[in-house]
Amino acid sequence: MQIHELDTPCLILDLDVMERNLRRYQAYFDDHGLGFRPHIKTHKIPALAHRQLALGAVGITCQKLGEVEVMADTGIRDILLYYNILGATKLERLIRLGRRTDLKVTVDNLIVGQGISDAAVAAGMKVDVLAEMGGPNNRTGAPSVPELLSLAQGLDRLPGLRLRGMAVYPSGPANAEAIAQAVAGLQRAGLSTEIVSGGGTPGALQSHTVPGITEHRAGTYIFMDKMMVETGAATVDDCAVTVLTTVASRPTAQRAILDGGTKTFSSDRGLPMGIVVEHPAASIYMMNEEHGYLDISACDPKPTIGDRLRVIPNHVCGCLNMHDEIYGVRGDEMEVVWQIQARGKVR
Amino acid sequence: MQIHELDTPCLILDLDVMERNLRRYQAYFDDHGLGFRPHIKTHKIPALAHRQLALGAVGITCQKLGEVEVMADTGIRDILLYYNILGATKLERLIRLGRRTDLKVTVDNLIVGQGISDAAVAAGMKVDVLAEMGGPNNRTGAPSVPELLSLAQGLDRLPGLRLRGMAVYPSGPANAEAIAQAVAGLQRAGLSTEIVSGGGTPGALQSHTVPGITEHRAGTYIFMDKMMVETGAATVDDCAVTVLTTVASRPTAQRAILDGGTKTFSSDRGLPMGIVVEHPAASIYMMNEEHGYLDISACDPKPTIGDRLRVIPNHVCGCLNMHDEIYGVRGDEMEVVWQIQARGKVR
Repeated sequence: MQIHELDTPCLILDLDVMERNLRRYQAYFDDHGLGFRPHIKTHKIPALAHRQLALGAVGITCQKLGEVEVMADTGIRDILLYYNILGATKLERLIRLGRRTDLKVTVDNLIVGQGISDAAVAAGMKVDVLAEMGGPNNRTGAPSVPELLSLAQGLDRLPGLRLRGMAVYPSGPANAEAIAQAVAGLQRAGLSTEIVSGGGTPGALQSHTVPGITEHRAGTYIFMDKMMVETGAATVDDCAVTVLTTVASRPTAQRAILDGGTKTFSSDRGLPMGIVVEHPAASIYMMNEEHGYLDISACDPKPTIGDRLRVIPNHVCGCLNMHDEIYGVRGDEMEVVWQIQARGKVR
Repeated sequence: MQIHELDTPCLILDLDVMERNLRRYQAYFDDHGLGFRPHIKTHKIPALAHRQLALGAVGITCQKLGEVEVMADTGIRDILLYYNILGATKLERLIRLGRRTDLKVTVDNLIVGQGISDAAVAAGMKVDVLAEMGGPNNRTGAPSVPELLSLAQGLDRLPGLRLRGMAVYPSGPANAEAIAQAVAGLQRAGLSTEIVSGGGTPGALQSHTVPGITEHRAGTYIFMDKMMVETGAATVDDCAVTVLTTVASRPTAQRAILDGGTKTFSSDRGLPMGIVVEHPAASIYMMNEEHGYLDISACDPKPTIGDRLRVIPNHVCGCLNMHDEIYGVRGDEMEVVWQIQARGKVR
């Protein structure tokens, strides 16, 4: 089957571009003697996680228990769950996963640590944890080095936990100094720094400049997207995923309407949405759920009804989450259909 | 099972509030002798479409063939597909659906009209169509009354089509005059105005002031959301769907992190996201895929780790599309779990 036979809107994955991204990032970590632990939240596809492992990844990263369950069911063992887990239902799932995988989980406060420890003790096991340090994004994580050290000491004392090190998101030049201080502090306190896990695609290829990092997590690098082009981490040629759309309407000379909107692209990162590959001068200036409003005033020639356009999405992780499957292509030939098996795992 | 036993994040639907919304809107159209054709893109759940029909709706509206297929499989017959259908794959599905339902489809240009007509002629049948007029949103639809009349005349001449009238989105006081002119023009030309279909929740309860309208489509009215509160079409008490979340982290005194982000709420309508029911003074000022950043500086008392908060989403249609199921509750008791069967039907 060829691309021109696929109905729209749908996701197209250029397998050659993806493979180049996969190899480029893995080679960097190999060259620097660092572990690479890709985040599967971007692709959500077991076959691609296995490809990452085959190329040399030390394990994978997930963000939700549902993602860990999907990946564990395909035989993957070394998994980092980067999320505070709390509540009886989630703790039961965590313990079950801990029995059948080599699972590590991040923790950023002692309430969550106590809950996991209690569940582990009741189950007669230990759960591996990493103390989470806050990053420049001011999201989760202990917000200062002293608070991180206090958290790590508290976790180390809990009987159901095995402290394996620390983790932070994102990591890069902006917080290299703070990470180095935290690692030194953990070592002075006699705590484990076996794993010091950094994260993020934009800072990934500077990981060797962050003292103490032992491994790195990145997700978007596999596909790249408009957001990564804007940060400078990628070029348009590095973008492996496009949304194939059709011009369904041309109400005026300057406006075309694509058959994909927020339910196809997600609304992530706002407007304008994406980069139209065949018409870089066109701009998706508005979206409803099933409509992309395309300003074609700067296009010559202008797209007409029935034309099929490929669009690089703003945020490829959010975009894949809207779809049940993706078509892997080589050139114009469709080579594989993958179900996006870990899509929509909100818990 | 009670709400406090449900794991988070998840969707909670207050069945009593929904029923009040359903009855209020249906009663309005009954009182004014107008047909009501709810848009199922909001709920995507066959059981709720059947509830709308049982209360007196004349039929339903869908936006994608995949939605029509899901609904037709549950026995629903009178369906309006509000989208330009083109391409061989979609035309084949349209013809198959036309054989087993009373399907009507909107068309806004003669290229699409010709394609449907050719497919219908080849199948030995006729497809019912409505000529689509553009609305104040400048999306699809003939952008002026003369262009609408020219489109309708062209469609009426195509051998595989049966022109049943016209449709517009949105409809209300802003375009009442243009709609009246279009209806008069169709009548002067001897074309059908059997169906003149208006649309949108905000203008729904003014439909009687738009001359010529025979029926109206609305989706969001069933659940309402923050966007509808902002337009004045709803109050917070009319909002039937909330996202139940848990505070997973409290890195600082002023910041809490919820266990739901853009993969739980969608990014539709940007930031701040939603209304936190228990803490109206709190603001979700930032989101990543699995994290909601909550500013709690104005809260007294402040939410703590493990607290469960309900959030009215910005855009409930987009929010439901992120989830596989929704829990219907009466008071604190969970009464039903519905699969969101038409979720993710991008084609």
